[in-house]
Order: sequence, then C-alpha cells, then structure tokens
Amino acid sequence: ARKHRIAVIPGDGIGKETTPEGLRVLDAAARRFGFELELTHYGWSCETYAQTGKMMPDDGLEQLRAHDSVFLGAVGWPGVPDNVSLWGLLIPMRRDFDQYISLRPCRLMPGVRSPLADRMPEDIDFVVVRENTEGEYSSSGGRMFRGTEREFVTQESVFTRQGCDRVMKYAFELAMKRPRKKLTSATKSNGITFTMPFWDERFAEMAKGYPDIKTDQFHVDILCAHFVQHPDWFDVVVASNLFGDILSDLGPAVAGSIGIAPSANINPERNHPSMFEPVHGSAPDIAGKGIANPIAQIWSGALMLEHLGEAEAAAAVTQAIESLLAEGGPRTRDLGGNAGTVDVGKALAEVV
Amino acid sequence: ARKHRIAVIPGDGIGKETTPEGLRVLDAAARRFGFELELTHYGWSCETYAQTGKMMPDDGLEQLRAHDSVFLGAVGWPGVPDNVSLWGLLIPMRRDFDQYISLRPCRLMPGVRSPLADRMPEDIDFVVVRENTEGEYSSSGGRMFRGTEREFVTQESVFTRQGCDRVMKYAFELAMKRPRKKLTSATKSNGITFTMPFWDERFAEMAKGYPDIKTDQFHVDILCAHFVQHPDWFDVVVASNLFGDILSDLGPAVAGSIGIAPSANINPERNHPSMFEPVHGSAPDIAGKGIANPIAQIWSGALMLEHLGEAEAAAAVTQAIESLLAEGGPRTRDLGGNAGTVDVGKALAEVV
Ligand SMILES: CC(C)[C@H](C(=O)O)[C@@H](O)C(=O)O
Ligand SMILES: CC(C)[C@H](C(=O)O)[C@@H](O)C(=O)O
Repeated sequence: ARKHRIAVIPGDGIGKETTPEGLRVLDAAARRFGFELELTHYGWSCETYAQTGKMMPDDGLEQLRAHDSVFLGAVGWPGVPDNVSLWGLLIPMRRDFDQYISLRPCRLMPGVRSPLADRMPEDIDFVVVRENTEGEYSSSGGRMFRGTEREFVTQESVFTRQGCDRVMKYAFELAMKRPRKKLTSATKSNGITFTMPFWDERFAEMAKGYPDIKTDQFHVDILCAHFVQHPDWFDVVVASNLFGDILSDLGPAVAGSIGIAPSANINPERNHPSMFEPVHGSAPDIAGKGIANPIAQIWSGALMLEHLGEAEAAAAVTQAIESLLAEGGPRTRDLGGNAGTVDVGKALAEVV
Repeated sequence: ARKHRIAVIPGDGIGKETTPEGLRVLDAAARRFGFELELTHYGWSCETYAQTGKMMPDDGLEQLRAHDSVFLGAVGWPGVPDNVSLWGLLIPMRRDFDQYISLRPCRLMPGVRSPLADRMPEDIDFVVVRENTEGEYSSSGGRMFRGTEREFVTQESVFTRQGCDRVMKYAFELAMKRPRKKLTSATKSNGITFTMPFWDERFAEMAKGYPDIKTDQFHVDILCAHFVQHPDWFDVVVASNLFGDILSDLGPAVAGSIGIAPSANINPERNHPSMFEPVHGSAPDIAGKGIANPIAQIWSGALMLEHLGEAEAAAAVTQAIESLLAEGGPRTRDLGGNAGTVDVGKALAEVV
C-alpha cells in the first residue's frame, strides 16, 4: 500500500483535543482508500518549554524533516510569550521548510450561518494564497535609545523577486484549475510606496504568462471592505504575508466559519515537509472541556491528503464535512449545537 | 462674529461635486449659529498636475498654513500614479501639518442597512483612532539588483515612542469622554516582532495613566474578524497607520456606510491646520454624473466644526444627517434611492 509518513504535533490547548479527531478521520480515510499513514507523535508544546526552556529539541526540525507532512494542532499558551512559542515552533517550520504557500480556503458551507445578511453558499467560495516566508514578517529590525524620550523601533519588510514570483505563480496555477479563473491581488501601493509598487510590478509581469486568467487588484483597506460587501467577487486572492494573514481571518469570519477554517503551509517543490494546521489557535478559554470544534483540524487533514496525492480520500473527507453540516449532524457550541469534540470526529469518521 | 478661515480643495472626481454640498451645509450652519467662514478655494488636483507637472505650487503648504482648517474633497485620477497625486498633495498635508490623529467614526445610522444580519444601530458605534504620520507608511526603503533575478525591495516601518504615546493619549482621552470608556489596541506582536511588541509596551505604559478605561488588545487579523462578528464589542480602537487604514475601511463597511464615512486629520496642538475629508476617494466611475453621495463630505464638515469649537453647529449637522437617513429623506443610489448629490445637500442645508 502507499505509505505516507506524518509527524503529528498536537501542541497546546484545544490542539490536544482536535488532533486526535483529525487522526481518527484520516485513519478512516486510509482504510477506505487503501493507503497507510505512518505516524510519529511529538509532544512539543508550551509544556515542553516550561520543562526544558525550549519549544522543541535543538534537532527538532531535523526530526520532522524525515516526514512527508506535519499535522499540527495549535501552538501558544498564556504565560509563554508568543515570540517564544510561535517563533520557537510554528514560524521556524514555515521558514526552514520553505513552506512559502499558505493556502486558506474560505467557503460558506451549506448549513452554516454567515454573519452577512442574505448570503448563500454560492456567494462565498474563495481561496486566500498567502506568502508565508518573507514580507512584513521579517527578522530585520531593531531598537534605539531604549528607555528615553527619543526611543524608536524599526522593522524592515523585505520582498524579493523570487519570493513574489513563486507565490504568484502558485496562485495563477490554482486559478487556472478553478471554474471562474480569476485572481485578485492585495496591494497597498498608494501608501506603502517602496515594497507594494514592486509587488504590483511583479503581479503585472506574472499575469502576462496567464492570458486566460482575469486579474484585478485592490488596496487592502478597500479589499477588506469588499470581502464584507461583495464576497462573491472573489475566486483566488494572492497576498503578502501580513495582508494574507488579515484576509484569511476575515474571509472565514464572513463565511461564518472561523472555527472550521483549515490551512495548509505548502512547500510546492517538496524539498521539505509541508504542514497542515487549523486557522484557529489553542483557545485557552475552552481548552480541556471537550467542546472545541474539530472540523478545522479535520479539514486541514483533507488538505494534507490532497497534498499527499490522495485526491479521492481528500474529496471524501471534505464531502463528509459538507454533509454533516448541511444535514444537521452533530455540531459543537460555536455552530449552535451541543455536541462534543469527539462526537463530531466520530460522526465524520463513520461516513468518510 | 467668530470667524474661521477655511482652505477648500475639492480635488478630483466626485470631490468637485461633494465639496460644494459640504459648503452649502456649513454655510447654513454658520448662519444659524452665528459664526463666519472665510473660504479660500484652491483648484489643486490631477488637472493641475497635467498642466503644471505639480499637484500644488511649491509654496502650496505655506498657502494652506494661513488657515484654521482644510476642507478636502478627494485626490486621485486615472492616468496620474498614486505616488504622484497622493504623495503630492494628501500625504504631505498629513505629514507637514503633523496631523497625527486620523479620526474615523464608524456608526450604523438608523435607516441605513448594514450588510451584517440582525444588527441594530446600537450594535455598531465605534471610532477608529489611526496614527497618521509614521509606522508602516515610511519614506525609508529601497531597491537592489533591479531587473535581475535577485532583485528585492525593502521598506522600514518606524515607530517612535513619541509617535505612539501621543496617538494613544488622544485615544485614551477620547475614550474618557464616551459612555462606555473602552479602548482596544490593534496589534500584531506575534508576527511583527520588532515594532508591534513596542506598540504593546507603550500601550501598557499609557494605560497606567487611565485606570478608569477598560482596555483590551487583539492581533489585527482576529480584530478584523471581530469587527464582522462582534462589532458591538468596540468603542474606541487605536491603531497604527496601516492597521488604522484597514480598520477604518472595514468599520464603515460593516456599518453599511462606506459612502457616508467621514474622517478628520487632526493636529491636536493646533500648530498647523487640521484637514477634513471623506473616507471615499474620487470615484472616477461615477464622477461628473451628479449622483455621488455628499454625506461623507458633509459629515466631515461636522467634524471640522467640532474641531473649530462650534460644537453646537457640529451636533446640528450630525443630527440633520441622522434625521434625513432615519426619516427616509432623499438618498443617493448607493443607499438605494435615486436622489442627486445636490438634492441631498439642499435637504440637509434646509434642516440644519
Ligand atoms: C489614499 C491612501 C494613501 C490613503 C491611506 O491609505 O492613507 C487612504 O486609503 C486613506 O485611508 O486615507
Ligand atoms: C500566530 C501568528 C504568528 C500566525 C501568523 O500571523 O502567521 C497566525 O495568525 C496565522 O495566521 O497563522
């Protein structure tokens, strides 16, 4: 049988509850579609940090590198600063494994209520393709005159031609595969006048290679407004690291699905493992209660299957999620039900 | 009678249609409340640029400096790059006049439909206080290896202690004047790790001086989601230049009022004129047709009156707008009516 090696990192908070349900459904899909998942479990988390002073061992990335994919829950816990937890585990994976694509589908699923009035599933179905390694999340910056009146900090955004071109290429190729064949670029070249005009230049240049794709671009401020007012305008949206971060939280919010939104951190060349994680975080407020919605985790598992070449299995999992939501299957509190995390996982595993 | 000197710059596109209506209402307010407006008209626009190669004369800012306030329509026209039009007229005013506060009220007005389901006017009533002179809109950056594979661009965000403290102080003082006394800070310190942790530090420090204000903070990605899902959570929101730009387009969008949203660019020390302009742009698609909504311009006029110390007149103009919207007065196409720009202006001037 085909075999895929998966590193599993539940991480913190509800990640520990949603990851097992993700695995339950992946396991069901593996049995049904005849492939094997070889799992390695890693307990790396903020607890590891409390015990060892590190989020993961020094050779952590090396250990992960032996896998085809990483299946992640959530990282972060009160008491451990974000720059320790996230920059000690999540961000290094994105960077060192050159997962330069962050893919975040935003869909209004049948049976889910959008906060927008009068919107139907066919109105909200787009994908945010976010650059995931450079841009505004840079490691270049500093502070001067600390503790004085003239104290200031700087941080440099860095956009390379290679970095822009490859994420745009991915977005154009993705748009080619979708029926509407449309790609929107998020910019802010009227205000951010060194980096964003370059982004626009590269977008115009890359567009030449895809004459069949309809393109447009909006400044990120009005683009956010359009997500609310005209979500039906969008098909694929390509954005820088920061703008993609914002748009891929806003997109699920307008689709009423912030609790079920999946994400993929992809290295398209497969030089390194890709990583799959829900958009939501570790949710300390509901952690440990067994009430977290596992759908984001399970849907992220579907994205992983697709990346691993198990397209049929991926479609079956997505289909199972759609049916469960549309047909009034068990749902957690965030979707107005009172089912537990495990109930939803089991229900999905059964029908996959 | 009290006299205020106003520089009027209609600018481009619909700015030429909305500014006269703004003046019509201001004039009515002046007569009713017994003050005088001494107007100087400036035709500076993209047409000026076509004729002279400049958006305004070399001593343009000097000319404006002799006024108490600037009343602006909109700047920008197809064919003139944004970095010429905006950076030749709008941005220099914000910078040189040290208008470090951009104030943008977001309210669901009675009679206006929000794109959000089931939201009432009392659910959406907050103000975005945007830093308006530094941060991500910097003039420090550059490009290397132009035209080659290793080409890259950089742009430096710059946050000074002085810059952070003064905008936060303004926001805290504003929150003190509002019944809910709540201030939310927009951050992204988990991803943008040099500048935004400093922003958080300054916010925590400034908060010590305002023990009566309830504070919270959200990363800008989830904050955008909350604007859609829980707009009722917010009272005053303080944000950097870029985050404030995004939030103050998203806020009016959720309030269904992108066409009526006003803004004030304020120099609180009154060393230089402040500037008042609608949030919308020059709207080339509908320019010249007499159908643009003048309410954003007129509401910006109300913010100007307040800044000039004419609080009663300001309240009367805002009240007139509220009544017109609530009581089904003439409305332009964007609000589902078929009145013209002038109709709305006249209706408001009559009742002010
Ligand atoms: C035109 C542009 C430079 C401007 C900005 O981003 O500041 C506009 O979007 C605004 O919000 O006033
Ligand atoms: C946790 C944080 C650093 C991260 C990001 O901004 O990339 C998160 O918001 C995300 O979107 O994955």
